Amino acid sequence: MTTVAVVGSGAVGCYYGALLARAGVDVRFLMRRDLEAVRNNGLRVESPLGGFHVERVDAVADPTELGHPDWVICSLKSTALEHARELLAPAVGPNTRIVALMNGLGVEERIAAWFGRERVFGAMAFVCINRGEPGLVHHLDYGRVSIGHLLDDPGENARLAELLRLGDIEVVVAPNLRYARWEKLCWNVPFNGLSVAAGGVGTKLIMEDAALRSTAERAMREVVAIGNADLAAIGSAAHLDEAAVVESMFRLTGTMGDYRTSMAIDYVLGRELEVEAILGETSRHAARHHVPAPTVDALYALVRVADLRRRGLVPLIEDSGV
Amino acid sequence: MTTVAVVGSGAVGCYYGALLARAGVDVRFLMRRDLEAVRNNGLRVESPLGGFHVERVDAVADPTELGHPDWVICSLKSTALEHARELLAPAVGPNTRIVALMNGLGVEERIAAWFGRERVFGAMAFVCINRGEPGLVHHLDYGRVSIGHLLDDPGENARLAELLRLGDIEVVVAPNLRYARWEKLCWNVPFNGLSVAAGGVGTKLIMEDAALRSTAERAMREVVAIGNADLAAIGSAAHLDEAAVVESMFRLTGTMGDYRTSMAIDYVLGRELEVEAILGETSRHAARHHVPAPTVDALYALVRVADLRRRGLVPLIEDSGV
Repeated sequence: MTTVAVVGSGAVGCYYGALLARAGVDVRFLMRRDLEAVRNNGLRVESPLGGFHVERVDAVADPTELGHPDWVICSLKSTALEHARELLAPAVGPNTRIVALMNGLGVEERIAAWFGRERVFGAMAFVCINRGEPGLVHHLDYGRVSIGHLLDDPGENARLAELLRLGDIEVVVAPNLRYARWEKLCWNVPFNGLSVAAGGVGTKLIMEDAALRSTAERAMREVVAIGNADLAAIGSAAHLDEAAVVESMFRLTGTMGDYRTSMAIDYVLGRELEVEAILGETSRHAARHHVPAPTVDALYALVRVADLRRRGLVPLIEDSGV
Repeated sequence: MTTVAVVGSGAVGCYYGALLARAGVDVRFLMRRDLEAVRNNGLRVESPLGGFHVERVDAVADPTELGHPDWVICSLKSTALEHARELLAPAVGPNTRIVALMNGLGVEERIAAWFGRERVFGAMAFVCINRGEPGLVHHLDYGRVSIGHLLDDPGENARLAELLRLGDIEVVVAPNLRYARWEKLCWNVPFNGLSVAAGGVGTKLIMEDAALRSTAERAMREVVAIGNADLAAIGSAAHLDEAAVVESMFRLTGTMGDYRTSMAIDYVLGRELEVEAILGETSRHAARHHVPAPTVDALYALVRVADLRRRGLVPLIEDSGV
């Protein structure tokens, strides 16, 4: 029987892990905040598309208890990547494959440097999801996962697709991993970025305020251009179709209601923002490939300052009196 | 003897009015917040360059008490422009000239529509100044005023220059009024805009954070391009020298310490922001003249949302619970 360990049990890890567990896959979760609640009451997923409850969930607090599963799904926040190695290492046996179900460019390469390239995959979830109380995940919409093996091995991709489809998860094998990463950034840069830069707002305002929406669209077009320059540089046959990306991303976002991006929620809760993995990497790739990206750069500057504010590193006028 | 009325007694109006009053010009101030304090204790200016105290100040609460002076200095916030007519009208006699010492493009045209074009001037203060307690102005640095008659009449400009020089104010007669307006916007758009978009910060952070500084510089270069397109459209012989503007504005801003822009102070105090006069007009002129201005447009979108937040018109995630 296939065994899976989920390392990083936030909304995304819990949701996809629960889908697999519901289907009978042997899933073990590494948990912190939700450990007791999940041990006692299992995992619940609430969803307008139909919720479910996994009553008996195998959850551990220490990575040495993960064993050596067939698959490790690493769904840590990208800001925790520096701690990923120590969390993953105990679970990575000789035949363990690792799926980086995380935001940001370059995470697979970091993981590959520790554990070897052949076993590493990236996965990009296009899903609207938030955490509720411990043991509860609010699934709001969507759920498709794009996957790509780090070496773009078709056999390996088929293997991961097969696993995820066990959980009734919609899977798309990307033309290549890098393409899938850029496709995800096309949404994350404008919508995560603006949701924070505008002060902690949902997608509805960005979609309905003409100036914000046009800023989002400009940022998205810049990401397409940066991504295509990057894909061309690695010799990718696939490239992003600007018109199609913009049309589909805005159409899908229009159906999300007032979705709260993960970065906006982190911002409101004073948590670390995934600013480097999403905005910093994109801005740096623009510079590297000499692609003009003024909107992306401005969003990076402003969201980075928002993150510095969280850490008290920005001298705010309000803190010193007017 | 020359008579002056100051309508709009914020930091700028009080400062320049006090300089004229100190020199013996007959200045009458229309005041609200500071009225009692100024009647009792006069106006004090504190400044590292040398403060002073005008002990007896002529201050009134009602515009009908302003008489018909030779000059009306209108130093209202641009957001109060819709109320300017009723405040100015009682003071505008047959020979009264009006100086719009305000931010924003197009304010002179609005005033001219009410009172005629021949009598209207614009004045742009390049000054670091904040209000203190009632009756007190903190002058921090600079003070030069660029002036321009609405019809660019040299004799009229000389007349206004003569008045201001009575108060020992450094005066520059701009090549034309429109040029002076754009020159001021070259500073106001990036520094007022970013000081709010970054969450209410002073100029020091914008100067020292590489990403913010580069965003400020890009915005400034965009304003130069928009301004030059606009100046070309009106047949102006003068145009902005991009390199010289950027060099001098950044050099001067570097000497300001951690200056708090008027817009950042308004933001922190929850007051109405001069977003349309400074950012909106600039963004709209970019569109009109087909000048790409992604940084200016993004700042406009974000500062406009900041102003909407002030009025409770933005559904914030933090207000509805996470």
